[in-house]
Amino acid sequence: MSFSAWMRDALLQVEQALERWVPADAPAGLGEAMRYGVLDGGKRLRPLLVRAACEAVQGDAAAALHAAVAVELIHAYSLVHDDMPCMDNDVLRRGKPTVHVRFGEAGAMLAGDAMQALAFEVLTPEDGSVDPALQARLCALLSRAAGHAGMAGGQAIDLANTGKPLDEAQLRDMHHRKTGALLEASVLMGAACGPTTPAGWAALSRYGAAIGLAFQVVDDILDVTQASDKLGKTAGKDQHLNKPTYVSVLGLEAARTEARALRRTAHEALAASGLAAERCEHLRQLADLVVDREH
Amino acid sequence: MSFSAWMRDALLQVEQALERWVPADAPAGLGEAMRYGVLDGGKRLRPLLVRAACEAVQGDAAAALHAAVAVELIHAYSLVHDDMPCMDNDVLRRGKPTVHVRFGEAGAMLAGDAMQALAFEVLTPEDGSVDPALQARLCALLSRAAGHAGMAGGQAIDLANTGKPLDEAQLRDMHHRKTGALLEASVLMGAACGPTTPAGWAALSRYGAAIGLAFQVVDDILDVTQASDKLGKTAGKDQHLNKPTYVSVLGLEAARTEARALRRTAHEALAASGLAAERCEHLRQLADLVVDREH
Repeated sequence: MSFSAWMRDALLQVEQALERWVPADAPAGLGEAMRYGVLDGGKRLRPLLVRAACEAVQGDAAAALHAAVAVELIHAYSLVHDDMPCMDNDVLRRGKPTVHVRFGEAGAMLAGDAMQALAFEVLTPEDGSVDPALQARLCALLSRAAGHAGMAGGQAIDLANTGKPLDEAQLRDMHHRKTGALLEASVLMGAACGPTTPAGWAALSRYGAAIGLAFQVVDDILDVTQASDKLGKTAGKDQHLNKPTYVSVLGLEAARTEARALRRTAHEALAASGLAAERCEHLRQLADLVVDREH
Repeated sequence: MSFSAWMRDALLQVEQALERWVPADAPAGLGEAMRYGVLDGGKRLRPLLVRAACEAVQGDAAAALHAAVAVELIHAYSLVHDDMPCMDNDVLRRGKPTVHVRFGEAGAMLAGDAMQALAFEVLTPEDGSVDPALQARLCALLSRAAGHAGMAGGQAIDLANTGKPLDEAQLRDMHHRKTGALLEASVLMGAACGPTTPAGWAALSRYGAAIGLAFQVVDDILDVTQASDKLGKTAGKDQHLNKPTYVSVLGLEAARTEARALRRTAHEALAASGLAAERCEHLRQLADLVVDREH
């Protein structure tokens, strides 16, 4: 199967699962807001990473689908909250009005809160489809990536440093938490669905950290080089908000060099994982996708 | 041990665990805001229910402590978000300025988000102290109680119906979700820490649902009969916000009668649980506490 055919199949599966598992019938418009915040949009990079990592370890595909949906729910909830007036105050996301524009601030806050809870519901199906010990492991990985030491911690650093100069190490730490932790967790949650050696686990963790950082470097590049209609969100936002970025700290060319170096690190980690190269092919191509993407 | 000595011991344990598990060192003030939102305050009713239910089934006390802290974190995060200007816009909670007054709106939103994630971190310790299958069960119970079908769903109904008349059935449904789901989950999470029969589980679930509703009925009564300094939060708020309450729907006397009837239901459920009466004594007394409390 070609990479693009694999992508299409994987994306279809995750869309169908989101369609099934994000409730339309939650009370008083809550389900509608949750679905608006997560369906029909997004690159679904995290679910793709979960699936590719699961395939690399020949893991349990059904469990990986639960993990893929859960991690996308966490990502989507963070965008819903991040876009709110008290945070980035953004009105455009995935080419549509943001959730708070459509459903009000209280509606957006509640939808985000319920999406985070739903992620852990999805990880703990009560129908016997996912081994309980694996459920616990996936909850452990996701909660730590989403919480104070991961994504929420990174957002707190971001919030506290808007308008202030950060050096490269501080910027790296912020993004390692804010974006990297969840991307790395996507890889590790996929890997948790099958057997791994300690060396294999460590290599996949290095791979995840490298593409996590690469993703943010490229995001910062695209923020200054692409137009809003291409991005599906407001371009030039970081500069407008006076946020430190890889481009503002390193300059555009050095940021591009950094992205390519991180791709090399990711590829090398896969080569050192002890996993058969052909099983890591989709992870390898996802690293390319992260660095070469244009939106 | 007397009930009050048991309470003191249980409260001390949960305070010490919160002190240990809610991180002071989360980045950029996030830990400080999280700790402000959950330490040094609150009745800790949910942790007490977890512990009493665990004792009723002679369950694993260490696991129950994790469950107790997790459920209190979910409760505390919901208050942090609920108090924000886009929701109830309240400035006083547990006798102190609310989190958004002290740390800003973005800080409060992030602290709440991180507290929800932390609840699931606390349920999934990686040190072998809680059986993985039990971790998964606790995550399943808590996520469902916190999410769209439970607490968040109830808040959405609340939000959508402020200023509108609700009949008693609608009010009951709203509160069953908004407050009841998490109180019932506290009982069931404690019960999950030990062995139960299906009949015992069903009885504890009935007990939890009854005190969940009783708690809200009494809350509504206290909102009109007590002063702010006694409550530690703004009194008369429901009326001010034109929210439907048991008092506005039933009248004060009928609300008091309802609270006593729910206590009877709770006591009867314990008697029918098949569990030894002396092991249910603290649950029984907690039902009294819920109905007889003055703040």
